[in-house]
Amino acid sequence: METYKRQDMPVSERIDDLLSKMTLKEKVGQLNQRMYGWDAYEKKEDGAYALTDAFKQEVSRFEGMGALYGLFRSDPWSGVDYSNGISAEHSATVANEIQRYVKENTRLGIPVLLSEESPHGHQALDGTMLPVNLNAGSTWNPELLERAYGLTAAEIRGRGAHLGLVSVLDIVQDPRWGRTEECFGEDPYLAAAFTRAAVQGMQGGEGELASDKRVAVVLKHLSAQGAGIGGKNAGPANIGERELREIHLPAAFAGAKAGAAGFMAAYNEIDGIPCHANRKLLTDILREEWDFDGIVMADGQAIDRLLALTGGHEAAAALALTSGVDLSLWDTSFTTLEAAVSSGIVDESYVDRAVRRVLRLKFELGLFDRPYTDESKAASAIGNTELRELNLNIARESVVLLKNDLNRLPLNASGKRIAVIGPNADRMYNQLGDYTSVQRPKTGSTVLQGIRMTAPADASIVYARGCGIRSSSAKELEEAVAAAKASDVAVLVLGGSSARQFGDLFDGNGEAVIGEETTSEMDCGEGVDLAELRLGEAQRQLADAVAATGVPIVLVLIQGRPHAIEEVDKLADAVLCAWYPGKEGGQAIGEILFGIVNPSGKLPVSMPRSSSQLPVYYNQKDPGRLRVYVDMPSAALYSFGHGLSYTRFDYPELSLSAASIAAAELASGEQVKVRVQVRNAGDVAGLETVQLYLKARESGITRRIAELKGFTKVALQPGETREVEFGLGAEELGFWDNAMNFGVKACKVEVMVGGSLQQTITAELTIV
Amino acid sequence: METYKRQDMPVSERIDDLLSKMTLKEKVGQLNQRMYGWDAYEKKEDGAYALTDAFKQEVSRFEGMGALYGLFRSDPWSGVDYSNGISAEHSATVANEIQRYVKENTRLGIPVLLSEESPHGHQALDGTMLPVNLNAGSTWNPELLERAYGLTAAEIRGRGAHLGLVSVLDIVQDPRWGRTEECFGEDPYLAAAFTRAAVQGMQGGEGELASDKRVAVVLKHLSAQGAGIGGKNAGPANIGERELREIHLPAAFAGAKAGAAGFMAAYNEIDGIPCHANRKLLTDILREEWDFDGIVMADGQAIDRLLALTGGHEAAAALALTSGVDLSLWDTSFTTLEAAVSSGIVDESYVDRAVRRVLRLKFELGLFDRPYTDESKAASAIGNTELRELNLNIARESVVLLKNDLNRLPLNASGKRIAVIGPNADRMYNQLGDYTSVQRPKTGSTVLQGIRMTAPADASIVYARGCGIRSSSAKELEEAVAAAKASDVAVLVLGGSSARQFGDLFDGNGEAVIGEETTSEMDCGEGVDLAELRLGEAQRQLADAVAATGVPIVLVLIQGRPHAIEEVDKLADAVLCAWYPGKEGGQAIGEILFGIVNPSGKLPVSMPRSSSQLPVYYNQKDPGRLRVYVDMPSAALYSFGHGLSYTRFDYPELSLSAASIAAAELASGEQVKVRVQVRNAGDVAGLETVQLYLKARESGITRRIAELKGFTKVALQPGETREVEFGLGAEELGFWDNAMNFGVKACKVEVMVGGSLQQTITAELTIV
Repeated sequence: METYKRQDMPVSERIDDLLSKMTLKEKVGQLNQRMYGWDAYEKKEDGAYALTDAFKQEVSRFEGMGALYGLFRSDPWSGVDYSNGISAEHSATVANEIQRYVKENTRLGIPVLLSEESPHGHQALDGTMLPVNLNAGSTWNPELLERAYGLTAAEIRGRGAHLGLVSVLDIVQDPRWGRTEECFGEDPYLAAAFTRAAVQGMQGGEGELASDKRVAVVLKHLSAQGAGIGGKNAGPANIGERELREIHLPAAFAGAKAGAAGFMAAYNEIDGIPCHANRKLLTDILREEWDFDGIVMADGQAIDRLLALTGGHEAAAALALTSGVDLSLWDTSFTTLEAAVSSGIVDESYVDRAVRRVLRLKFELGLFDRPYTDESKAASAIGNTELRELNLNIARESVVLLKNDLNRLPLNASGKRIAVIGPNADRMYNQLGDYTSVQRPKTGSTVLQGIRMTAPADASIVYARGCGIRSSSAKELEEAVAAAKASDVAVLVLGGSSARQFGDLFDGNGEAVIGEETTSEMDCGEGVDLAELRLGEAQRQLADAVAATGVPIVLVLIQGRPHAIEEVDKLADAVLCAWYPGKEGGQAIGEILFGIVNPSGKLPVSMPRSSSQLPVYYNQKDPGRLRVYVDMPSAALYSFGHGLSYTRFDYPELSLSAASIAAAELASGEQVKVRVQVRNAGDVAGLETVQLYLKARESGITRRIAELKGFTKVALQPGETREVEFGLGAEELGFWDNAMNFGVKACKVEVMVGGSLQQTITAELTIV
Repeated sequence: METYKRQDMPVSERIDDLLSKMTLKEKVGQLNQRMYGWDAYEKKEDGAYALTDAFKQEVSRFEGMGALYGLFRSDPWSGVDYSNGISAEHSATVANEIQRYVKENTRLGIPVLLSEESPHGHQALDGTMLPVNLNAGSTWNPELLERAYGLTAAEIRGRGAHLGLVSVLDIVQDPRWGRTEECFGEDPYLAAAFTRAAVQGMQGGEGELASDKRVAVVLKHLSAQGAGIGGKNAGPANIGERELREIHLPAAFAGAKAGAAGFMAAYNEIDGIPCHANRKLLTDILREEWDFDGIVMADGQAIDRLLALTGGHEAAAALALTSGVDLSLWDTSFTTLEAAVSSGIVDESYVDRAVRRVLRLKFELGLFDRPYTDESKAASAIGNTELRELNLNIARESVVLLKNDLNRLPLNASGKRIAVIGPNADRMYNQLGDYTSVQRPKTGSTVLQGIRMTAPADASIVYARGCGIRSSSAKELEEAVAAAKASDVAVLVLGGSSARQFGDLFDGNGEAVIGEETTSEMDCGEGVDLAELRLGEAQRQLADAVAATGVPIVLVLIQGRPHAIEEVDKLADAVLCAWYPGKEGGQAIGEILFGIVNPSGKLPVSMPRSSSQLPVYYNQKDPGRLRVYVDMPSAALYSFGHGLSYTRFDYPELSLSAASIAAAELASGEQVKVRVQVRNAGDVAGLETVQLYLKARESGITRRIAELKGFTKVALQPGETREVEFGLGAEELGFWDNAMNFGVKACKVEVMVGGSLQQTITAELTIV
């Protein structure tokens, strides 16, 4: 048997052997991922699936196929739903058919990699849709996400795919950006913690990739997509290297260190260099500085966009390949690599380098040795009750109680009439976010359904939509006012929507295209950027009309970005921000409204008062004195880290193990221990996220107003006190110095600990 | 005689000799500019002036004085007015007294440098206040500015001062910034042209510094102050090197090449490094790359702000000095340099380097050889009719006709009733901008006065203020409505104000401090940043009320930044943007309203629809496809380069001398000639600014949507056609490549020429 087929041989020898046997064409085939997966099959009238000619041609074109994207993807863009797509029970069968065709109809039989979209659960028919990343960030509980992602991986692998594309790296600094929902928030430390959790959850520990419960991950996007100018999707980022390293790279670094199999390059440029052409980013930093040896995948059609730099496909391919991109996605350019090598534009050694990386991943996934999936288990891969419970728990822990005047919440609803009003009260898709698959009817719970599930039996619930996200009618408004008038409390469920509709326009990469033809009310999601962050006028009118009835208002926000809610906030006694809480979100919100669950979410992103005051992210550089606007406070309406509870927490004491420490000691592994007491001073049990921030100075460069460097979530019974300990070592106290080297240097550090940045106790640490 | 006193010796030998004689203390004295000039003298009851003890102590403290700032400054911050300040007639006398004291009471008799604020004319009693830089930029006529600055220099030098601080380098990218008025606009090429004009105007040709009509210039600010985050004054700029070089450095480079004597470092940081601590900026780029050998002055108290990086004054001084700052301004840190050298924090060679630069400037200004000013000529240095005429001409050419529906303008006003309404109609200080001195009463013309001066004799003019900039009263509003109702046309004069008041709060550097105590209506200027760019609510109400009368509205904007005027714009048939048009601005506006002057200004900065859509500057990076907001156009309301005329201009033909040229040819000095025909197709004579833009692609980096690379203003009689020629050489076609080297490389270039970027004719140029 050829070496590369021998499971007993070391992977590196198998790769060497295989590479030596491959033609240039076959190599180029391994670097391409050109097809949309849904074009690879057809569902016949009898319910059986057939591979398409297009798929077979694509396989024969390069005598193999590097990867196939989105075989199971379902959404309005792909046009895939239950009528024509692959439900869970058939998925392993189709995946095996694909794999078998590739193996049996190519000279070397190299298996194809099946990659799937899973930014918040598997975007497939029957895939479990988790809350979006903003929710995950709001839980401040990465362990929850790790466990959920572990089960998502099992869903994907159980159905026959191998690779999950997960959004974890983007940092939102401008919430006008429609992809805000895909971010863990505005903080690099928080995002790094969740990135680590995502990688560990999906991939498991070292060497687990071949397990039938794991998938490899491609982390997206590398890098600085959240710095796009004006909050515009894929907008140019004009930032410098320090800003890149301090804000946008930490999550990627954490992902690389956690063993992520791959990264996806970002669409945007950084200071004039598109990420796909950015050798410094993709090679110098990622490979050389971080020792990363996995794959770099292109974003959809992004290599073709390099034509603006090169003028031709071959040159674009050469630029991306030599910069460090290994595997393409839906573009023409990488299909020309054979010609690019032949004509001398690029050296074949670059092709070999990329092919080795792709092959290594396939070997690590075990695809050469066990290419097929157990078809009998595919159906049971989904519908896992543990995942449903985790999904619910993420939703529960992610809801942020922004304010609670008069202790309006939890609602004392026994015998009361509750009006549930608003465009997001009873629309399942509106609470799922972008990158959501077509759902089976009657699964999950909307807010209205959740309220009905959790309200006291003697409460009466009435519902009126009131208006659309951006549309209104006098009739709906009247109904809502009537409902409010007849009630003891109104739960107003407002916000935005990333729900796509069949018939919307999409770009070649799936991004929504906004034009006059668009009929959907989608005002968030990829390609859907807003200038004005206030809620749509229809919703403001609805809130005013409901408030005018005098009924107390509880505002629930279902949204994929922080809206500028100041005027609506004023009308409500209590405000819950639930982001896009996923399939079980309605139940979670109901439980919180009625006090079954005590809210514990904390904002992972600051909520501005207005688009006019952007940016408001908390960790801005300290300009030495407060810089204000003459006409508006500079501070966010609700800042990063904020979140209330039905109980309250005290922080009586903070101590450091040393007031002073030498930089050299820290560099050699020592830590300063920060110990803080936290006490539940209220009457109900609750979860508190203890947050640790640093404010450093006198370090030779400017520093930030505050930097999150530790957090932990603790459960406390009424009256209970716990001591929480944080370790501050070289990782937390180090910084990128004037010469752009990372390390610990002499400086002064204010250590601040509390339940939010606004309420901390502090201690001073000197590094000498 | 000692060598340094001998006028026949070369300057470098004189410096060597002097330096060799100086103690460390004396050297340090030369690097300090610690006093506010107005603290150096007292005006006695008899009208005579006496030097203060504070001044004498400062001189003796270091056995000399490097420089004295703002001896003649007058404004609410300094508290100097005609009662206690130095009017023109006494200025040379006081200056000479200062100089004499320094020379005669110090061991070596090194003359003091007298520096004066002159961002738009000399900010002194009797100093001529020119329109602000936004107006200069709007003229697209640098020659006008050069001539005006020439006469400003004569005013300053004639009164006995030597150095003018001029704002020329800042590029506005976010008009929330209160210092927008100080910028020539958003374009680096335009700013470079005006910077060159300012330097040549103030300094004259090479070697003219010793002339009694010239002053040396310090160009401010270096660099990227306009990139401050959120449009906040002195806010951190997180940009990368390419953005810095492409946008923020070209004006500075032009100034250095034009021979500017000095630069002032900017308050802001660039990607973590404050400019005052930025060796790469102040030394590597400025000195080594550009061969600049003048002085770098600190901004006010900016070195003390480095304490955030260093913790101590000595270390802050050492950091600034070694980075490249030579001369301080009002800070403590540089006074500790003697101790810093003694304690080994900084090597004395750095002190010597800076002292040499300061001494060289003093020698070049002739201060060692002719330290005193002719006192008999001081009074005649001001009130120059040529400067008044230039001042008027800048105002005339700077007014931008934004729209002119129904050809409402020029007003056919014979026999008509004209209502002049608005808070900026009759407030001289409101049209002068920040950095304005106290004015003699009854000089210049407000808009109302200008209208009265220029209206047909049989027109009747009625005035009502209507409201304040940010305040309103029912009575004023009623008066305005009554005036409008009784008129045939209303000229609504709205906008903002940078007028400071005695009693306002100011920071130690003169920046306005905004707090609840502030009573002024200042909503623009240094330290006065706005979040919301709409006009104040009082003004919007006024406009609505006037519009409701049905009277046709001509809107005149007096403002130091582009406001978001969309809603007011809709109410007006015609809109003139006059920025802060200076002392003669009222007359200029009147002449334009009545057709005596044909407007020819073009916007040097894009006017946004809303703060929500920022940034809107025209020369953003091209992201490959148009990036839009779902709820608002991305385009500015009126874009850079826009401006109408009472005639219209056609561009029948554009040709290039070559469709293709080799990069090497361009590098060796060849140019592609662009020839364009421009024709006055209307009925009246007019001035047209022909604008040339490039859009490059396929150059290995991303490029901008358009880049201004040529402009020229031509006068055309009705029916007249002229050919305009532009040369495109290495300077215009070069760019900073992937490796950050500037040069011409193979690429494709679309050459666009027209009266604005929205209306161009194009040709394609290939560089091979």
